[in-house]
Amino acid sequence: MNFASDNTSGVCPEVLEGITTEASTFDAAYGLDNSAAQLQEKLAQIFERGVQVYPVATGTAANSIAIGATNPIWGTVVCHELAHIQVDECAAPTVISGGVTLDPLEAAHGKLTPQILQNRFYHRRDSGVHSTPLSGLSITQATEAGTVYQPEEIADLCGLAKANSMAVHLDGARFANAVASTGSSPAELTWKAGVDIMSFGATKGGALAAEAVIVFADIDCEIVERLRKRAGHLLSKQRMFTAQMLAWLNNDTWLTYANHANNLASKLGSGMADAGIQVAHDVEANMVFAWLDPATHSALTAAGAEYYTEARMGDLVEARFVVSWSSGGRDVDDLLAVLPKR
Amino acid sequence: MNFASDNTSGVCPEVLEGITTEASTFDAAYGLDNSAAQLQEKLAQIFERGVQVYPVATGTAANSIAIGATNPIWGTVVCHELAHIQVDECAAPTVISGGVTLDPLEAAHGKLTPQILQNRFYHRRDSGVHSTPLSGLSITQATEAGTVYQPEEIADLCGLAKANSMAVHLDGARFANAVASTGSSPAELTWKAGVDIMSFGATKGGALAAEAVIVFADIDCEIVERLRKRAGHLLSKQRMFTAQMLAWLNNDTWLTYANHANNLASKLGSGMADAGIQVAHDVEANMVFAWLDPATHSALTAAGAEYYTEARMGDLVEARFVVSWSSGGRDVDDLLAVLPKR
Amino acid sequence: MNFASDNTSGVCPEVLEGITTEASTFDAAYGLDNSAAQLQEKLAQIFERGVQVYPVATGTAANSIAIGATNPIWGTVVCHELAHIQVDECAAPTVISGGVTLDPLEAAHGKLTPQILQNRFYHRRDSGVHSTPLSGLSITQATEAGTVYQPEEIADLCGLAKANSMAVHLDGARFANAVASTGSSPAELTWKAGVDIMSFGATKGGALAAEAVIVFADIDCEIVERLRKRAGHLLSKQRMFTAQMLAWLNNDTWLTYANHANNLASKLGSGMADAGIQVAHDVEANMVFAWLDPATHSALTAAGAEYYTEARMGDLVEARFVVSWSSGGRDVDDLLAVLPKR
Amino acid sequence: MNFASDNTSGVCPEVLEGITTEASTFDAAYGLDNSAAQLQEKLAQIFERGVQVYPVATGTAANSIAIGATNPIWGTVVCHELAHIQVDECAAPTVISGGVTLDPLEAAHGKLTPQILQNRFYHRRDSGVHSTPLSGLSITQATEAGTVYQPEEIADLCGLAKANSMAVHLDGARFANAVASTGSSPAELTWKAGVDIMSFGATKGGALAAEAVIVFADIDCEIVERLRKRAGHLLSKQRMFTAQMLAWLNNDTWLTYANHANNLASKLGSGMADAGIQVAHDVEANMVFAWLDPATHSALTAAGAEYYTEARMGDLVEARFVVSWSSGGRDVDDLLAVLPKR
Repeated sequence: MNFASDNTSGVCPEVLEGITTEASTFDAAYGLDNSAAQLQEKLAQIFERGVQVYPVATGTAANSIAIGATNPIWGTVVCHELAHIQVDECAAPTVISGGVTLDPLEAAHGKLTPQILQNRFYHRRDSGVHSTPLSGLSITQATEAGTVYQPEEIADLCGLAKANSMAVHLDGARFANAVASTGSSPAELTWKAGVDIMSFGATKGGALAAEAVIVFADIDCEIVERLRKRAGHLLSKQRMFTAQMLAWLNNDTWLTYANHANNLASKLGSGMADAGIQVAHDVEANMVFAWLDPATHSALTAAGAEYYTEARMGDLVEARFVVSWSSGGRDVDDLLAVLPKR
Repeated sequence: MNFASDNTSGVCPEVLEGITTEASTFDAAYGLDNSAAQLQEKLAQIFERGVQVYPVATGTAANSIAIGATNPIWGTVVCHELAHIQVDECAAPTVISGGVTLDPLEAAHGKLTPQILQNRFYHRRDSGVHSTPLSGLSITQATEAGTVYQPEEIADLCGLAKANSMAVHLDGARFANAVASTGSSPAELTWKAGVDIMSFGATKGGALAAEAVIVFADIDCEIVERLRKRAGHLLSKQRMFTAQMLAWLNNDTWLTYANHANNLASKLGSGMADAGIQVAHDVEANMVFAWLDPATHSALTAAGAEYYTEARMGDLVEARFVVSWSSGGRDVDDLLAVLPKR
Repeated sequence: MNFASDNTSGVCPEVLEGITTEASTFDAAYGLDNSAAQLQEKLAQIFERGVQVYPVATGTAANSIAIGATNPIWGTVVCHELAHIQVDECAAPTVISGGVTLDPLEAAHGKLTPQILQNRFYHRRDSGVHSTPLSGLSITQATEAGTVYQPEEIADLCGLAKANSMAVHLDGARFANAVASTGSSPAELTWKAGVDIMSFGATKGGALAAEAVIVFADIDCEIVERLRKRAGHLLSKQRMFTAQMLAWLNNDTWLTYANHANNLASKLGSGMADAGIQVAHDVEANMVFAWLDPATHSALTAAGAEYYTEARMGDLVEARFVVSWSSGGRDVDDLLAVLPKR
Repeated sequence: MNFASDNTSGVCPEVLEGITTEASTFDAAYGLDNSAAQLQEKLAQIFERGVQVYPVATGTAANSIAIGATNPIWGTVVCHELAHIQVDECAAPTVISGGVTLDPLEAAHGKLTPQILQNRFYHRRDSGVHSTPLSGLSITQATEAGTVYQPEEIADLCGLAKANSMAVHLDGARFANAVASTGSSPAELTWKAGVDIMSFGATKGGALAAEAVIVFADIDCEIVERLRKRAGHLLSKQRMFTAQMLAWLNNDTWLTYANHANNLASKLGSGMADAGIQVAHDVEANMVFAWLDPATHSALTAAGAEYYTEARMGDLVEARFVVSWSSGGRDVDDLLAVLPKR
């Protein structure tokens, strides 16, 4: 019953197979190999247009490079106050970009809205060269609260951002879960809605370590390559990372796993609600946030369930349960069985 | 006949096996898993003392973090003019460290000497707060020229560095080849000789991607952890990297492969010399540098041999042949067979 | 009627005299001159203990260097949301320090309180190496709202900060006004209350350009010197800046001018209140914030009054009137005369 | 007999007068005042074309911002090995620019030549994204050796730089001395010869502290403004710096003082040569470098002469004598009188 994070899962068989096949060959280092073009092509097919793709080893690197590539070093990126870039990356976006400031906003259920963004424009005091102008917006899909943005919600946010000359970054560490959840196409959830650049993550979804910056906007990508190199993320055997992503994307493996995790999370959420536990956010991806009373928390822990706890409210604790590609239905059943009967 | 780089090779079976085993389990993310302690222990055994170890995805990251952790941000690190940190990392050591300057020195056969270092002290004009003081020395083992430092050579350099309050970093991207070549112990080649911190590389030696910063000096390692995180190199499924390194270290696999590569390189070098080709440096690790005339260069290329060319001297071109863990004896024989008979 | 900023005033006669005297002499560059020791001594007298002092050309530099010197590069400094470091320095504190993050908090009348700080501790999610720990507190004295902290208020904030291992910085761009206003000693308002480092500003108070970092805490000041040099703030003719500060400090000139400005501001604030205008904050230093209706705003502008406007509330506009060392009582009278009679 | 540096001199009467006049007025802060346009105009006249000018407090800031504004953060700037940016600025150009690397070259008498630059192109190993490309050239005028570049020498260097897509920066801390020495126009010595951006220094020439970045190239100057602000160099009472520069430029004051210093240096150099002392470089500006034997060195020091010593050669010491705008002919006579008779 390990629901600590999708990062505590292992590596899916398809990715292992991809690595194994690539392992026995020789090919050029640093992304000059044959699989680089194959990945470019595969992503073009998935996104229904040509894209530029730059593999890196972590989501933090992808986010930081993406933000650095689309904002001036004196700019500010608006994000949700729980965004990974704000809370979990130890200022890497600022450091790797060369100085970009983050401006975290409070918003319910992990989702920014045009109203909240507009409100920020209204209340923020800008003063020319003295202040750091709002130059970018970063949204997370699926969100840190386990919710998802629908294409039109993204389009509305992007429209407002663009009207204010801001570039839009999408942190897609769980993009697969969002695609599976919305049933919308990757294109509709990104560039068709106005996203300029994204972090595309396969690690949480089953890879060993495979993340990438994907560029939709018409920018000179030398900045992406240079920021990547300067952060130590130009991988020597890059093809071993490309191979992971290709194996994960082929045959809709990524979506199959995401659907699996989403469905189990949905089941887990429903089961908790049925047991009278307050579920904090709609369960739209692979995470369930629930307010546990001390007895339930103790019972679950005693039963060996692993999960993170975050905020507290009175004697309730907010618990996060993440279902991964490798979680079994049995785990969910076992966990639900521990819950006190109403 | 791919001698372009050890990075163009694939992944050795032992590492694949290590990944595969780890792949099917759950364990904590971000290095809080069980294999982290196992690696610490394994390295303690190899280095004959306790060490701190911090896995990262690339050698550039390892070098940059190691330098940043042992030099003030206003310091200067002396290195060979062909050092990877100087020539191939796009200033990542400066960027990731927060400002450390590199000071490249010319030296024959890729090896710094106490004389050259002393000479630098003598000729460098330092002026207090106005200049960036010499605070570190970085040496590469095996060197970029395919030579190796003997323990006493390292000790002499470290002694001089320490006498001048400089920290010593060792770039061990090909450390395995150096251990195999010298027959000296890892301890003798590092901390016993005075090395404070090293980049320990397994990628060139057969891993998918597994590098680490190893700390010998008595420093507060929070700086290592923070610099690593800020560069996006705290790996979420770090145990998949740890597993690679463990598999590669177990049963002396690393040294077996390094010996294999060194021996083939030696054979290649001798064969070239026998064919009247000028070999630029003693072949002490897994690389051969040879001055090729146009006819030989054409013949080799036509035969499908892959290798990098670097400097030129008249109509001769300096070619670098790197033998990897996976190179076959047949490749060497085939290449030598192409050489013009004397 | 120029109330735009204390920075729009000129240079006071005493400072001019100080510059003129120093101008005709030769002395060592870069702070190795005789006046450096004199300033050290003068400040020791004013602060009733030995201090380290580092002149720079701007308050932004002083703040940024002070923060960089007392926080790890991965730290976070809590400040008021209107703090100069947050709003008006284009991320210089982050850039010059090497990465420190700012965490702005809302608080009435420009003043942080222990309650607000404690509340921040409570709600902030910290997650080890993933997040940037709260490492510092920066308060502004006099505040951006024209209010001042009493010694015990500073002591309470510092006590809470220290209990949480945070260094305390005081932005004293208008420190003279705070000393004049509280009647408390410079010592009571700083190190005796727990302040570790401060930006001491003379420019707004009558100097041409003379700011300094003053260190109370027992730290290795090489970091201050290096950050200063790296930001281009080690002044070649530093003695011309030292001379300004000495002239300004001698004979309590600084306090005389601060009292003058405070008193006029007080008169201006009372006059406005008497005229039925809502004054936003208590007038405790040299600034008055008032909510002007359109008619009053137009009348003042038409009469040639210069001031900044900031927030809006309905059809009211928040106007900031800054009284400087050189403002005349006549200016205040003239401005009040323009106000509509009740 | 203070020949330590032009920075040990005071402030010339004209600059003092300029400050004094400006001191008694009110005007906008942060460069939005009237004198900013006047300086722009005055420089347009001096340089025979429109320029953008950005005052800062130090030459280090001017150099660093200028380099940052004309090079990508991953670029490399070639300079003389004795250049101030290389030797005396504690890596500020790298830090303030966001990462630019310096590549110092050896060259006789402080002057780079096209041959030396071409040679650097030839021997430098570039490797795409792995290395930091040569993106800029920085020359110093007058040089650190007290020599000057003639317009055609600058044009040749710029031509070669431009042919290699490199931006050209001129460090003009002693530009006045170069103009006075060559008799060439400021335009001929800068943009007409191909210089893109320069640091224009008045401090050494008689100002209190007045340096500026002057932009000739057609670039978006927001980068200059932002880098300046982020380094804490947007001066609040900027007009007090502008006023210095205006006063210094008016009536050719700057050139009058430069001629004075150059002439005295020339006399000093000749006198030394006549006394049999080896003068290291042609005396073309306001500095004399001389190889002193121990007896002469002792005699001068005993007589109270102040000067820096740099390199050593056998028992000779290289002494630098800098003549400033305020040095008296008497000082030179007195110093020469101390020299041993041949």
